[in-house]
Amino acid sequence: MELAKRIVNGDRRAAARAITMIENDSPDRQKLLKALHPNTGNAYLVGITGSPGAGKSTLTDQLLFWLRKQGLQVGVIAVDPTSPFTGGAILGDRIRMTGHSLDPGVFIRSMGTRGSLGGLARATKEAVRVLDAYGSDVILIETVGVGQSELDIMHVADTTVVVLNPTAGDHIQTMKAGIMEIADVFAINKADLPGADKTEREVNNMLDLLHDLDWRPPVVRTTSRDPATFRTLWEACSRHREYLVQSGHWGRRRRQRWQDEILAIAEQTLSRRIRQSIAAHPDWPQLLREVESGEKDPYQVADLVLEWYNTTISRP
Amino acid sequence: MELAKRIVNGDRRAAARAITMIENDSPDRQKLLKALHPNTGNAYLVGITGSPGAGKSTLTDQLLFWLRKQGLQVGVIAVDPTSPFTGGAILGDRIRMTGHSLDPGVFIRSMGTRGSLGGLARATKEAVRVLDAYGSDVILIETVGVGQSELDIMHVADTTVVVLNPTAGDHIQTMKAGIMEIADVFAINKADLPGADKTEREVNNMLDLLHDLDWRPPVVRTTSRDPATFRTLWEACSRHREYLVQSGHWGRRRRQRWQDEILAIAEQTLSRRIRQSIAAHPDWPQLLREVESGEKDPYQVADLVLEWYNTTISRP
Repeated sequence: MELAKRIVNGDRRAAARAITMIENDSPDRQKLLKALHPNTGNAYLVGITGSPGAGKSTLTDQLLFWLRKQGLQVGVIAVDPTSPFTGGAILGDRIRMTGHSLDPGVFIRSMGTRGSLGGLARATKEAVRVLDAYGSDVILIETVGVGQSELDIMHVADTTVVVLNPTAGDHIQTMKAGIMEIADVFAINKADLPGADKTEREVNNMLDLLHDLDWRPPVVRTTSRDPATFRTLWEACSRHREYLVQSGHWGRRRRQRWQDEILAIAEQTLSRRIRQSIAAHPDWPQLLREVESGEKDPYQVADLVLEWYNTTISRP
Repeated sequence: MELAKRIVNGDRRAAARAITMIENDSPDRQKLLKALHPNTGNAYLVGITGSPGAGKSTLTDQLLFWLRKQGLQVGVIAVDPTSPFTGGAILGDRIRMTGHSLDPGVFIRSMGTRGSLGGLARATKEAVRVLDAYGSDVILIETVGVGQSELDIMHVADTTVVVLNPTAGDHIQTMKAGIMEIADVFAINKADLPGADKTEREVNNMLDLLHDLDWRPPVVRTTSRDPATFRTLWEACSRHREYLVQSGHWGRRRRQRWQDEILAIAEQTLSRRIRQSIAAHPDWPQLLREVESGEKDPYQVADLVLEWYNTTISRP
């Protein structure tokens, strides 16, 4: 596939076009991802999440500067699941201002919810693959951490950085259930503000409560006033990456994700076939009426649908 | 099933227990819903959605008073998808204060996100069925309208009321894409505040842009200062219900939802079977490794998985 070749050869516009195809759920999407597949799996995927206003974008920018200094090629995907109707334009504008836009070693893309939240998680995952095949050494995936959908998006990352603030003491309490589970590294951002000690203590207290942590997430203080703090943050991420590789988790996690992906593809195909089999069945409208009237229940009709489907495929 | 019988006979505690079973995804969930099915389909389902702070809970309370005056039995499900980690406790406390809690003709339940947002939409749908079988004439489903997940939840309603405020002028612009599509009735709540004229004009202007509306959503001004405004709101809902029945949409929509439901059940069953078939297959771990290394792509492996599955079921 021509577009895939161009992406692998580092054609920036081809990569941008591919992500648009993914967002628009283009019919060629699957062909593209299939063609890109042999060239993926090399990028290190770092998720960056936290409450609105925690300074995720500044932190991402600072990491970008540091990674570029080391000569690494970086992709950034900024996801905003809370703005379903804006299409990510605000994030896009924000990032365009940061001065990386002319750097050929940086590819930045913002994504909003077009369809369902599930669709956004899928699109993010696939956009990551495009940037991976494009040659990114590191891909930063930034998203607002407010709910389950963001947890799903973060599921794609190898290392997840949770961004907190010194004043967020009370906030940690309410978020900890989900956040503590996905955090591999904590960044206490805006650490020059008062309260950083208290926040660090609170995070550590909570980590103490989690027994049997193979990997205890390091807590790093970051502040734009001292760019070296982002270097420390990056070193914490790199240590986590090493831990994953050494422990065997790296491969296991990636294989688990491929399994999820393969099952999702198989289920989509089955779902399409089942829909075709009911659309073609003469009894279907009558059965629906019987479910509506209460004569039949949806569970017994679902069993019938599966029988129809099985009969279809077992025919020679 | 004993629990189902008690619910149909109007046993309040049985209904509460059933919804807890649904929330906890209890193994008996499906048996319960199967047993309740013949007694469902009678309630009129009204969704109430809008931005945080629009006054949805006050509006729900006011509608409740009006419906109770008419002797109707009412169920209320207050869903908060933005609080995944609180389990809806805040909503619950709020509602307990309103004074309906001792009224046997009212059943109020708040629900938060336990698992995924998709799980919440499913649990809401199933809780509605419990309250339907319990004998509710009307079920009010209240949810914060901030994203796709709420649109999914609202999908269960026969009539959807979108709650706006006089000061929400700019907000309408950003939300309109999703909101305009699901609204059957608009309520401009807190209509005693300045700006109600402007908001009403804006909503009407946007409705003018939507061509070929079979049903043009009425715009009703409501304010707690004049309880009669909620009676007007209810009359607008009732007109929408009549429109649905007369036009045939009522039955079509309900049958469409049953179709979605049946397909979802069938797909869950298939998904479970596919997982079993790969778990039992000796080649699976090797295939995953080949996908990880890029030798095979997930699409071709998904096809293989479907072949395995088809072989399993076509065996005698």
